[in-house]
Amino acid sequence: MENHQLIDLLNQMTLEEKIAQLLQLTAHFHEGTESEGQITGPMEEMGISEQMVTASGSVLGLSGAQAIIDVQKAYMSKNRLGIPLLFMADVVHGFKTIFPIPLAIGSSWEPELAEKSAEISARESAVSGLHVTFAPMVDLVRDPRWGRVMETTGEDPYLNSLFSRAFVRGYQGNLQEDTERLAACVKHFAAYGAPEGGRDYNTVDMSERNLREYYLPAYKAALDEGCEMVMTSFNTVDGIPATGNEKLMRGILRDEWGFDGVLISDWASIREMIAHGAAEDDCEAAYRAIRAGVDIEMMTPCYVQNLPELLQSGRVDKTLIDEAVLRILRLKNKLGLFENPLRGADPERERELVFCKEHRKVSYELATKSCVLLKNNGVLPLQHESNVALIGPFAQSDDILGWWSCEGVKEDAVKLGTALEERLQSGKLRVANGCDIHSITQEQLEEALEAAQTADIIVLALGEDSSMSGEGGSRTDIRLPEAQLELVKHLQKLGKPIAAVIFNGRPLDLQGVFNEADAVLEAWFPGSEGGAAVADILVGRVNPSAKLTMSFPQSVGQVPVYYNRFNTGRPLDPLKTEERYVSKYIDSPNEPLLPFGYGLSYTTFEYSDLTLSSLEMTPNQPLTVSVKVLNTGTRAGVETVQLYIRDVSGEVVRPLRELKGYKKLKLAPGEHGIATFTLTEEQLRYHHSDLGFTSDPGTFHVFVGSNSRDTLEQKFKLASSQLA
Amino acid sequence: MENHQLIDLLNQMTLEEKIAQLLQLTAHFHEGTESEGQITGPMEEMGISEQMVTASGSVLGLSGAQAIIDVQKAYMSKNRLGIPLLFMADVVHGFKTIFPIPLAIGSSWEPELAEKSAEISARESAVSGLHVTFAPMVDLVRDPRWGRVMETTGEDPYLNSLFSRAFVRGYQGNLQEDTERLAACVKHFAAYGAPEGGRDYNTVDMSERNLREYYLPAYKAALDEGCEMVMTSFNTVDGIPATGNEKLMRGILRDEWGFDGVLISDWASIREMIAHGAAEDDCEAAYRAIRAGVDIEMMTPCYVQNLPELLQSGRVDKTLIDEAVLRILRLKNKLGLFENPLRGADPERERELVFCKEHRKVSYELATKSCVLLKNNGVLPLQHESNVALIGPFAQSDDILGWWSCEGVKEDAVKLGTALEERLQSGKLRVANGCDIHSITQEQLEEALEAAQTADIIVLALGEDSSMSGEGGSRTDIRLPEAQLELVKHLQKLGKPIAAVIFNGRPLDLQGVFNEADAVLEAWFPGSEGGAAVADILVGRVNPSAKLTMSFPQSVGQVPVYYNRFNTGRPLDPLKTEERYVSKYIDSPNEPLLPFGYGLSYTTFEYSDLTLSSLEMTPNQPLTVSVKVLNTGTRAGVETVQLYIRDVSGEVVRPLRELKGYKKLKLAPGEHGIATFTLTEEQLRYHHSDLGFTSDPGTFHVFVGSNSRDTLEQKFKLASSQLA
Repeated sequence: MENHQLIDLLNQMTLEEKIAQLLQLTAHFHEGTESEGQITGPMEEMGISEQMVTASGSVLGLSGAQAIIDVQKAYMSKNRLGIPLLFMADVVHGFKTIFPIPLAIGSSWEPELAEKSAEISARESAVSGLHVTFAPMVDLVRDPRWGRVMETTGEDPYLNSLFSRAFVRGYQGNLQEDTERLAACVKHFAAYGAPEGGRDYNTVDMSERNLREYYLPAYKAALDEGCEMVMTSFNTVDGIPATGNEKLMRGILRDEWGFDGVLISDWASIREMIAHGAAEDDCEAAYRAIRAGVDIEMMTPCYVQNLPELLQSGRVDKTLIDEAVLRILRLKNKLGLFENPLRGADPERERELVFCKEHRKVSYELATKSCVLLKNNGVLPLQHESNVALIGPFAQSDDILGWWSCEGVKEDAVKLGTALEERLQSGKLRVANGCDIHSITQEQLEEALEAAQTADIIVLALGEDSSMSGEGGSRTDIRLPEAQLELVKHLQKLGKPIAAVIFNGRPLDLQGVFNEADAVLEAWFPGSEGGAAVADILVGRVNPSAKLTMSFPQSVGQVPVYYNRFNTGRPLDPLKTEERYVSKYIDSPNEPLLPFGYGLSYTTFEYSDLTLSSLEMTPNQPLTVSVKVLNTGTRAGVETVQLYIRDVSGEVVRPLRELKGYKKLKLAPGEHGIATFTLTEEQLRYHHSDLGFTSDPGTFHVFVGSNSRDTLEQKFKLASSQLA
Repeated sequence: MENHQLIDLLNQMTLEEKIAQLLQLTAHFHEGTESEGQITGPMEEMGISEQMVTASGSVLGLSGAQAIIDVQKAYMSKNRLGIPLLFMADVVHGFKTIFPIPLAIGSSWEPELAEKSAEISARESAVSGLHVTFAPMVDLVRDPRWGRVMETTGEDPYLNSLFSRAFVRGYQGNLQEDTERLAACVKHFAAYGAPEGGRDYNTVDMSERNLREYYLPAYKAALDEGCEMVMTSFNTVDGIPATGNEKLMRGILRDEWGFDGVLISDWASIREMIAHGAAEDDCEAAYRAIRAGVDIEMMTPCYVQNLPELLQSGRVDKTLIDEAVLRILRLKNKLGLFENPLRGADPERERELVFCKEHRKVSYELATKSCVLLKNNGVLPLQHESNVALIGPFAQSDDILGWWSCEGVKEDAVKLGTALEERLQSGKLRVANGCDIHSITQEQLEEALEAAQTADIIVLALGEDSSMSGEGGSRTDIRLPEAQLELVKHLQKLGKPIAAVIFNGRPLDLQGVFNEADAVLEAWFPGSEGGAAVADILVGRVNPSAKLTMSFPQSVGQVPVYYNRFNTGRPLDPLKTEERYVSKYIDSPNEPLLPFGYGLSYTTFEYSDLTLSSLEMTPNQPLTVSVKVLNTGTRAGVETVQLYIRDVSGEVVRPLRELKGYKKLKLAPGEHGIATFTLTEEQLRYHHSDLGFTSDPGTFHVFVGSNSRDTLEQKFKLASSQLA
């Protein structure tokens, strides 16, 4: 349809029809779904009439081509104006083919591959009938207690922004031409990743400058990439729930950034303003949300029940409703739903595409590129002739998909034990659980000790089960569960080499395993092909190359600890740790156990010859920065060369290091490569106290290296200029 | 002098003389002090000339009447215009008579007694020659990892403000008439109490609304009480070090609040702007500080070395310097120093007053009122005929004064073992160390077990040594040291009653002792008379009445946890803790172990009949709230009845509970009392999103009870009104 046709359509709609477009319910409310019979209760409870359901504009959580075709057809048969339903769902890291969790995807430092994973997710979802995914989740995070750190790509605004754009490209592609793509919905706007105490849904408080400098860029990046939708967050932003935050939604999102797509609440987040204490009742909650510019209300009836009265009393202007409806109609039109309400839904294509070999291959590749080698005293890769004891609750576990893999089927996941068995010579592998996630018995321990008896090396498969991270999965103790540490203690006594593989959804406090093991591989939740990928790394078929995008703390008492922190006025001199009046802990280093950007390879890389094209930069004259990287080991490997800067003195204080670029070099043994970066004045800008985004002339440091800690260093000056 | 005379004096001063007034050095730089010979090094290093020292306006850290008389006389003999030196020092919780640490003083909920302690501190200091104390420290705190929580009165802005005013009154009294008082210097402006990760001097970031609502009130309260000076903080405020923060210092402190007294940097905090990354060099640091309105530079020479050039180049206007100097001259004049440069300094009075019996008596009283009984299964008070084993590193320790007790003499402190010996029948007490603070030997353990053998009850004296809190004393692990927990484990096996007394400077994670002991008494660092006060509580001569003013967390993984938090949109229903998608941890309660306001007595109190004078409040018609409290136990006791409110719905979200008042009731067994409160519309105001300070009409809850958790509840409505 043309725009004027949409406006004509809008003009034909009754007020009730308009308001119903703003309502999103789960599929259970709709006829044509299996559970249809069960809906009477909730409908009555929510005060939703059948008529509202009939007219409601979108559905969440349903999938499967035939199911969606049925619901859409039943819906269209009753819809007076022929406005089709929008089908949305949480497709976060894969539909049926599950990819590693986003925190793992981040560790690949390969947005191209993230894009590919999103494209596959979109295709599987679209042929299964979906139109919109509630992804990407791009919340910046600094607190590993929070369970949802697994859903983000980490602690850096620049890297998060690259991934944000990549995911949006992957999901949406050419949305209008390609019916096997989804509209993306970036979330959770804004700053949901900074809940106090790492407790999910908790209060967020920060300065506006902090918000703009670190938290907002990745959302903005998604919009710059054309992301069709935005989801509000559960938290407060400066004391007002995001869902009713006019300054955030109208001010920044719509007016300042020009976003004209659909803004949707998170699940029940309009009504939750009452619990927050920002509205006395549903009516006030509806008022604040519509004023803030929220178009679709998910799963609560504040709009449908109260907007009529709010309009009648004149508190809400009709144009607010019309704008919201028009944005929804435009999205439906963009997806071609008026012409083809079923869009990509196709049971045959669904059978062909979903969880197909090609898709699983990409999941495998991404898993191999997202497992981070944290430590290796030379015991990995496994020797060909070794007898291996694989011990631990993840030895034979299929709980490796991670949270938010709703359509994923655990039973389809490749287990580590199975994959390792296939790769080792017959009779070389013995497997024992050793313990469960949270408990250990004498029998399990004995079985483990028995399995280890004849082994040359013990591979420990430890971790958190998937419910220990993800939404609602916040922990105060981020160590491995006690039972597993117990197991490590016992096995350590055997004096055999130990390689630990950790499956989990957050940076852990690795006390009790990091020092005890000779090698540690962070496998995260690696997805459908996880076992195969991890096994290939263990046996050395694949050389790991991933790098952490979130710091691993020494302990939870050090949280938050992140690389792009400020210096303070009394920085700790690493050579004078006994000084009292400096910024330190008396019982812990300031530095994390493992810094941002950190990750080992089976080969080694030597950095040299960090060279700047000039000692001075001007706004018109960018710098070229280059560094030589030599593969000094015996295997081919990929190194992610990272460039950081530090603005030594600013109008406001600047971080010790800020990632400004990175290059991947693939180097054969003995081979060297040159990584070359261009650094421009634009990259030196930041938000000043007046929120102006400019650079400060003066001294800058450039760091290039293998992670945010181990770097070579040079200096340059940014010249003053009228242009700056 | 009259004001015009001060201006005349100012006009006679050379630029160098003016700038020297802005410099503060330690006494070592001044002739007349013993260590005079040692100063050449630092002076040269700092680029400070003898002339600058001769003319410098103030001294820090020296005390003793004769020493100060000597330095002042030597100084005056060389000072061209006869402008006397100001002597300042950190007198934080006592001069020689050491009072409990401020966090303990807070627990007394007796500002009157805090005032008395400050008056005594002032008198002892003043007769020893001091003019100014760098106190009170009124930083609001929520993170027990931070070592300086010991210096504050806690997590509540209202209670902190009451204490802030009390301390100022106590120090200053009638400053102009009474030469045995000090000028107070409130610190650390602003928000120093919120360092990230609880690490001293670390970055502070928060919204301006949060800053104004929670962190600023206690500083403002000090100024409302006439506090003469303000000290800048070490941290950044919204990205700019406080010391160079024009918006904070000129904007809020001077322009908005009208503060016209002396603003002093913290130790070296002007120069530290370079490390912060907010100044490239000393000159820029000086520029930012003088522009922000800092009058005195402590211990760095940025002003003396750079202001002349900054004036000459026109970047800094002469009026800025003149204003700063005039403020300093006015303070000297207010103290009467032009007429009497020695002011209270008097060796004879010093001998009379310092650490005199009357002063120690007040310290004793404050200690008895600040020890908080955290748990008691009936084993306390000690039975008269009991055999008692006193075991632990604090059994015979004199390290009970706490940090910032510079002039305090440990050897003068009353030890717990000594005091208990005096109070028990001969032969009833056995004492053993059991372990050191951080280590335990087999021998120590055996000695402890031996001592416990014949005992009817074990009194454990455990804790942190004083260097484990205080400035630079941040910890990531806030449990008792491992060795002490080990001791508890061993003694617990004896199956005897255990009463633990904890000496420490912060809310601890009490795992390993709270559940293991039958009674727990939080003694804090109780000061000079600590042992006597604790012993009197143990034997029941004193009935404890103190209440926590900072929450005790379940574990460090729960930090920050504080009572006046927000509800979130998905509050945890205590009856449905298994629900996943609510704001909770999967491995810990949300609630602290011990809430704000908590503290037991040897008797029990029952609350009933919470009554409101009306169900509606208007701006002109305050409410009266009353409650009946009955002593249901067998001893006389004092109960602190606390009143909290909750604004159910605000323009911005409001805390679950906010302390608005409290009353102390002293009740005999079986006696009841009525606590009556007046609640006005003014008390319901808060900072809105536009920073306006107003109230919102609507529903409010009133809670009255024994602590912030255990309360009776009523509701009322605030009516709309043109006056609001």
